[in-house]
Amino acid sequence: MKINWSTLTVPTVLVNRTRAKRNIANMKARAEGAEVQLRPHFKTHQSHIIGKWFGEPETTPIAVSSLSMALYFADHRWQDIHLAIPLNPREIPALSSLASRAQLTLTIEHEDALTVLDSLAHSVGVRVEVDTGYGRTGMHWQQHARIRKLLDALQAHSKVTDIGLMVHSGHSYQERGEAGIRVVHQESSHRLKELLDMMKWQGEPLVVSVGDTPTCSRMNHFPGATEIRPGNYVFYDLQQKLIGSCDWNDIALAVACPVIARYPEREEVVVHGGAVHFSKDAANLDGQLSFGQIMQSNADGWGGPVGGGYVKGLSQEHGKIHLPKTMIRDLKLGDLLVIVPAHSCLTMAAMGDFVVFD
Amino acid sequence: MKINWSTLTVPTVLVNRTRAKRNIANMKARAEGAEVQLRPHFKTHQSHIIGKWFGEPETTPIAVSSLSMALYFADHRWQDIHLAIPLNPREIPALSSLASRAQLTLTIEHEDALTVLDSLAHSVGVRVEVDTGYGRTGMHWQQHARIRKLLDALQAHSKVTDIGLMVHSGHSYQERGEAGIRVVHQESSHRLKELLDMMKWQGEPLVVSVGDTPTCSRMNHFPGATEIRPGNYVFYDLQQKLIGSCDWNDIALAVACPVIARYPEREEVVVHGGAVHFSKDAANLDGQLSFGQIMQSNADGWGGPVGGGYVKGLSQEHGKIHLPKTMIRDLKLGDLLVIVPAHSCLTMAAMGDFVVFD
Repeated sequence: MKINWSTLTVPTVLVNRTRAKRNIANMKARAEGAEVQLRPHFKTHQSHIIGKWFGEPETTPIAVSSLSMALYFADHRWQDIHLAIPLNPREIPALSSLASRAQLTLTIEHEDALTVLDSLAHSVGVRVEVDTGYGRTGMHWQQHARIRKLLDALQAHSKVTDIGLMVHSGHSYQERGEAGIRVVHQESSHRLKELLDMMKWQGEPLVVSVGDTPTCSRMNHFPGATEIRPGNYVFYDLQQKLIGSCDWNDIALAVACPVIARYPEREEVVVHGGAVHFSKDAANLDGQLSFGQIMQSNADGWGGPVGGGYVKGLSQEHGKIHLPKTMIRDLKLGDLLVIVPAHSCLTMAAMGDFVVFD
Repeated sequence: MKINWSTLTVPTVLVNRTRAKRNIANMKARAEGAEVQLRPHFKTHQSHIIGKWFGEPETTPIAVSSLSMALYFADHRWQDIHLAIPLNPREIPALSSLASRAQLTLTIEHEDALTVLDSLAHSVGVRVEVDTGYGRTGMHWQQHARIRKLLDALQAHSKVTDIGLMVHSGHSYQERGEAGIRVVHQESSHRLKELLDMMKWQGEPLVVSVGDTPTCSRMNHFPGATEIRPGNYVFYDLQQKLIGSCDWNDIALAVACPVIARYPEREEVVVHGGAVHFSKDAANLDGQLSFGQIMQSNADGWGGPVGGGYVKGLSQEHGKIHLPKTMIRDLKLGDLLVIVPAHSCLTMAAMGDFVVFD
């Protein structure tokens, strides 16, 4: 499939299927090499069309981060779904109903969730979230006894089938380069290993699920883990490029935005394409916040990055772009700029729709 | 109408209709006092239900910032619609079609747009955007001769009915307090006046549309303007409170988010409610970025702000909240926190749906 540029009138997500499928295949090979199960996180694309690029729904285990995503993918035939965000007690009736038609795994991070699980009418798997340094959610990795006790209680719980641990080392996003990613990965793996050693677990086998796109893209071994759970790698984005998770030619998603104003004297153009399209996540580009990178566009999609071309500001519908004067001189009103967003997950969540090309 | 808290299971926008209607009435009175037409910007709510609180669709002139919003409101009986973003030539066929069934006003900021207007099959109004200091879009206010020449060409254009100027002083958002807002307003008004004086316009009467929520909320006179075009004032938000556009009890929109994790030792809780719900606009709270303010909740809605309670971080679905330890001790999993977002326009654009109460 080719992009029909003339039909694009508004900010439009472009997905390079060839690259996305290559990213999917590469991660699959990496998981096989590391002898862990791959459970791709589908929050990145939230699309049953793209979801099927990962394999048959019935045989592809997935992670999602909201009940609504879980329901969406269950409606599209996915069967093994891990809701990888701490349990919201208000959703118990809907979760219970979903558990009657899918193999549902929930996430908890506190003993208080045990009584909440009592209200389920159908059985679920449960992962205990462990915080190995990110500092967002999860039980502190040094709480060996507390985590062990919670696993014991889960193993004895009548509504719980399989159990395990879940880790998300989101602080890898603060790193730059493979060496930095390795530091986070090694620290997190070491802490997980310490927890597993100290717990002296003798019960049923634990699923140990780890994963974030930087470490899963660059590391080859996941000590202590039985499963990895990256999501963003299907597309990558500017943040991942700057972290060092990917190269420019791995990035499979960009947004085409029409030029609506040009200011060569300011080295700026403005496009239709704002916070409602890109969200407002930024990447730090040598001290300058960048909401996206302008790419060399061509008939088949896009090539490398345009030097000095980046999104310097976003308001609701406007995107303010820094561009070299020489390039602005050739731009007409209505020309399309192709922009790799800072964060492809939030861009897809904001825009929903997309155009696929090869 | 009352909020039925027990039915809220996911992050939910709450709209206080009493306050919103009071904000609408106050701005109407302010426009009448200043003898300017009020054209509310509907990008803030994007809802025909809330839109009708401003008056009958057929007699309420509005501004929007995308063709899709213009189509939506035209489908819901609004007739006088200003698309207040520079013309995107790719949308000409759809704009032309819309102009056949609504009184459509377009925005341009360059002579190149004149030939684009030739392709319209139906007539439109046109506003020339003038930049009086914000630095986003518009012709520089000192380009008197150029702007005059463009207005001349528009007046002679067969597809153009009424003409005018449009200004948006978005840099008022950088101010703190009424004195700061006044500085931006006076500078912008002075520059607009200078342009009008220097142009020596003798043609048909110009519509001169200005407006941003801070100046429209706090200033009483709009020299040179015939129309104001604020949007955010229907709800206000944390940014507007910090700018000084409103008081806490003017804020008519908040988001109820379920607590999914508690860390009293870190003075933090985590809610379901992330970047996909709030977008990622932030307010600067004494040097600390805040994506939202935690409010005292009560059976009828919310009261004042919780001291030390703010949203310190957002990932896709998680919101990390700073809260005093004493308050965390009383919170159970699944309790709802009521959060005034940094930017209500982006929150409404992200969430779409809402619950109304009085």
